[in-house]
Amino acid sequence: MSGYFRPNIAAMTGYVPGEQLRDEGIVKLNTNENPYPPSPRVYAALRKAINRSLRLYPEPLSDSLTSVVAAVYGVKSHNVIAGNGSDEILSILMRCFVGPRDRVALPVPTYSLYDTLIAIQQGEQVSVDYPPDFAVPEALASQNAVLTFLCNPNSPSGTLAPLPAIERLARSVPGILVVDEAYVDFAESEGASALPMIRNLSNLIVLRTFSKSFSLAGMRIGLAFASEEVITGLMKAKDSYNLNRLSMIAATAALQDMPWMTRNVRRIQRSRKKLTVGLRKLGYFVHPSHANFVLAQRKGEKLQGVYEALKRKKILVRYFDTPGLQDSLRITVGTPREIQALLKEMEIIGNGGVM
Amino acid sequence: MSGYFRPNIAAMTGYVPGEQLRDEGIVKLNTNENPYPPSPRVYAALRKAINRSLRLYPEPLSDSLTSVVAAVYGVKSHNVIAGNGSDEILSILMRCFVGPRDRVALPVPTYSLYDTLIAIQQGEQVSVDYPPDFAVPEALASQNAVLTFLCNPNSPSGTLAPLPAIERLARSVPGILVVDEAYVDFAESEGASALPMIRNLSNLIVLRTFSKSFSLAGMRIGLAFASEEVITGLMKAKDSYNLNRLSMIAATAALQDMPWMTRNVRRIQRSRKKLTVGLRKLGYFVHPSHANFVLAQRKGEKLQGVYEALKRKKILVRYFDTPGLQDSLRITVGTPREIQALLKEMEIIGNGGVM
Repeated sequence: MSGYFRPNIAAMTGYVPGEQLRDEGIVKLNTNENPYPPSPRVYAALRKAINRSLRLYPEPLSDSLTSVVAAVYGVKSHNVIAGNGSDEILSILMRCFVGPRDRVALPVPTYSLYDTLIAIQQGEQVSVDYPPDFAVPEALASQNAVLTFLCNPNSPSGTLAPLPAIERLARSVPGILVVDEAYVDFAESEGASALPMIRNLSNLIVLRTFSKSFSLAGMRIGLAFASEEVITGLMKAKDSYNLNRLSMIAATAALQDMPWMTRNVRRIQRSRKKLTVGLRKLGYFVHPSHANFVLAQRKGEKLQGVYEALKRKKILVRYFDTPGLQDSLRITVGTPREIQALLKEMEIIGNGGVM
Repeated sequence: MSGYFRPNIAAMTGYVPGEQLRDEGIVKLNTNENPYPPSPRVYAALRKAINRSLRLYPEPLSDSLTSVVAAVYGVKSHNVIAGNGSDEILSILMRCFVGPRDRVALPVPTYSLYDTLIAIQQGEQVSVDYPPDFAVPEALASQNAVLTFLCNPNSPSGTLAPLPAIERLARSVPGILVVDEAYVDFAESEGASALPMIRNLSNLIVLRTFSKSFSLAGMRIGLAFASEEVITGLMKAKDSYNLNRLSMIAATAALQDMPWMTRNVRRIQRSRKKLTVGLRKLGYFVHPSHANFVLAQRKGEKLQGVYEALKRKKILVRYFDTPGLQDSLRITVGTPREIQALLKEMEIIGNGGVM
């Protein structure tokens, strides 16, 4: 490592995203992409936008997009900031609220990118263990944190925290509460989102993404919703032209075809049910999932062998080689055919990957 | 301002990008966009890429792009990192090298986004005045800075620092030297770039962008070149999927049509000459420019009136309302017709905007 780097950066390993293999034949169930394509309206809008306007900078504040976002989600434009994926939004949040040695609380296990971002910012990560049923831990509120993360539905468990628990948490923490709702469109029942609560909770920030339910992971578009005051502050730390023209257009067009998104969500919910039932039949414990993935567990057994055996069969799932998760696999809800292929191979592999 | 923000963020005003008006009739000479469209190959590649692959995450390390970059610029892939515009690269640099109270040196006046980024990172900005001819100030090397910025060609002056001065600077500073070459393709002579020096200078980072010479400001693509060791470290602080699929494809296609870019550069160089001559005839002092803009100065006169009079005529140039620049206008080199329109209006406006 070059000696010019800050010690915290030098000490980091960096976030390792799920494998992105180029092999066309692979069944890719490892990074929670939507198995269905984006709306044809997205294609049409993009095709129309491929012209000489690409030479011009995009709107610095993504106004065309945020005005449509506001209409769809029933908020004002000044309650929204758009980012280069939720990733950029998360990075903005860290820079806005977290200084060296500031405490950042999160229930674990959860999305591991948070750890990386805290390390970059020299914050102090305060991890609070989830109970076995993944209810919001009571202790999370009392960590004296400037920033508290709640991924809801949570990754990798797929579990959903109820709104009253979130409201209680927001009212108890001394700093900002970020509810990362990347997967909320897949929740079993409507009304799972904390978004309407930004009106009454000045320390609440709700994140959304176009990568999952809208099938646009390749375009990198994330949103944050909060009070006008908070959004105005976040704007200061974003890159000056953070969203490119085509991503802005893709997101806008996707929002203009909500039936397409909800139809795909319903298909995924149906497949999730089949996947859950199938895995349980094979002896796995599966948490009730409200996301487009499930966490399949065999208490105390290391599942690396199953992951590797599946990979040899060109089926890619997510195995986290970290304490507490080595007995689990996170499996994206693919198409019915992909799920069938997966369940068949898992049956053949059997216990612990011994073939 | 919400009390949850860090004091340095609360105190900031934030970077103000040049105006992006939607009025089609405007002559837009304020943000240094290329007046010519991107290569037809870019359009073709983008059209082909609008398909169901948009549902998938992009390559985390932009490998397809960096391998082409490496071939075009005569470096290895491990010497390159791609970012969501140079903006993201600059933000990565700050997070990697600058902690609270660390000194960041830059000659002024220069690109004002640097100031914003230093403030976000709680760094200490050390400004060293350029001499009237915009030669690299000797004092720049001795500021004990962890990071030193040199925008070359410089914005807003358009002036070019010679390579020996840059090498001397890199060898004298105790930390990293960043040479921001956003405009270097427009330099009057070949061989203006410090890029080949990354082989011998382990503290040198060279930035490039697709926003200017490649006519792709709307797609947000920046590059950093450095030693493998430095690039490996920078990778840790980037967003996990920082470049979307279409931007990656646009950049790759643009690099595969270098004659298109160089032809547009030559047209802009010819227009720059005409613009410079025209402005001098009108009594302006114009620094010899190696960029796609010129800085037109009337020593000691405040030019806000000229800027405003031009704006009323639907011609937008850049006026910086900051000490030392109020007697200058930065004017992007547009098409011959745009330049003609500008010069005509400036002649009518005359001295100091008094019509």
